[in-house]
Amino acid sequence: MSNFRLTLEYDGRDFAGWQVQPPPARTVQGTLEEALARVTGRRVRVAGAGRTDAGVHAEGQVANARIDTRLGPDVLRRALNGVLPRDLAVIRAESAPEAFHARRDARRKLYRYCIWNGSSPSPLRDARSLWVQRPLHVPAMREAAAALAGTHDFASFQAAGSVVETTSRTIARLEVEGEAGAEVRILIEGDGFLRHMVRNLVGTLVEVGGARRPPLSMPALLAARDRRRAGATAAARGLTLVRVSY
Amino acid sequence: MSNFRLTLEYDGRDFAGWQVQPPPARTVQGTLEEALARVTGRRVRVAGAGRTDAGVHAEGQVANARIDTRLGPDVLRRALNGVLPRDLAVIRAESAPEAFHARRDARRKLYRYCIWNGSSPSPLRDARSLWVQRPLHVPAMREAAAALAGTHDFASFQAAGSVVETTSRTIARLEVEGEAGAEVRILIEGDGFLRHMVRNLVGTLVEVGGARRPPLSMPALLAARDRRRAGATAAARGLTLVRVSY
Repeated sequence: MSNFRLTLEYDGRDFAGWQVQPPPARTVQGTLEEALARVTGRRVRVAGAGRTDAGVHAEGQVANARIDTRLGPDVLRRALNGVLPRDLAVIRAESAPEAFHARRDARRKLYRYCIWNGSSPSPLRDARSLWVQRPLHVPAMREAAAALAGTHDFASFQAAGSVVETTSRTIARLEVEGEAGAEVRILIEGDGFLRHMVRNLVGTLVEVGGARRPPLSMPALLAARDRRRAGATAAARGLTLVRVSY
Repeated sequence: MSNFRLTLEYDGRDFAGWQVQPPPARTVQGTLEEALARVTGRRVRVAGAGRTDAGVHAEGQVANARIDTRLGPDVLRRALNGVLPRDLAVIRAESAPEAFHARRDARRKLYRYCIWNGSSPSPLRDARSLWVQRPLHVPAMREAAAALAGTHDFASFQAAGSVVETTSRTIARLEVEGEAGAEVRILIEGDGFLRHMVRNLVGTLVEVGGARRPPLSMPALLAARDRRRAGATAAARGLTLVRVSY
């Protein structure tokens, strides 16, 4: 039995997210498991570092699979890419220690959210960014981002109805790059995220950038622990899982 | 009557090219003319600087339209973007002199062709680049590009069956950027191009990069004036009309 660590790139547009669902939902996990079955003749379950939502992209999602095969990692990668559809690829395959688990062992995940802030829509950016027409006040977004970084109870940013043991998380990095009128990118890196937390943080920062919410209100928003107080969930199309660190 | 100069961005994937064709073909020109009719109540013909092929993208195509309207350029731009589909946008609208014609007055057009040269396919680049798996020899491509730049008879690079007055064209700039194993971009700027000429030049340069054709063979290839001697037409998905100069 070999344990493989697979790094994946995908265009999330036509996927109903990472996690396997009953047919006819087309998921990343399901599509990868099917390709593995075709290539190795074995039906196996793959574990992914992050369960990306429907429409979310990945440049460096990580998964692992334990497979009874003699194929080496590089042959496996090429064989998988030969049968995978154009919107999903294995961009790296490595032999992993038997105990390696892509989700449990993940230490940090980096996401990028892309906003197009031009006065006209951008068809070539459309598949991977959110169009915000009104010029954003980027310094205010940076001030709010600084208040949200660190270890906090992020209950206000969790999808309504979620049940988890603890809503405390650590955001190691929360940066707003770019400038008003052009591309504005939000980079978020943390040890783990609550459901919709990244997109709810982005939605809130966009409201700050649009002067609909003062940057100074972030501490009270965190303290409220109330989803209804935070901003709208930003569209999935703008979000990309950039890398997972172990 | 006002003459408007419109700068357009589009994702060419779902268009059957620029030029109006009988229905049900969905073309950029036809879609823009329909939007103009909806916004101004007038059916007008628009002229485009370059007749991009099916699947070719644009960051800065230029068109002009003479319209009997009181709308100013900025109001017109916003109104058009309000009715255009997501894959086509007017990114700039200006009042133009009455005599301005987007195609006849164009002095130079700049195209970019994007090649992904990684050992795995790249789903996030797929819509806008050609995947060439075998590592490209970029210095050889640069040498061939230098031999092709300038004023030449480009009959060898013209789509078979084309009829034009002269096949002499001037390529003012032909650069190969990037490096093997990553993104390789070819920039081509010229006063005008024969049908499929840009994609045939790219296809030939890719064969040079793959050591299937020596860079020194370019002068003989030009002299042959025979389409069958040049490389395959590179896929439309990798090509973008970047800007038109007047």
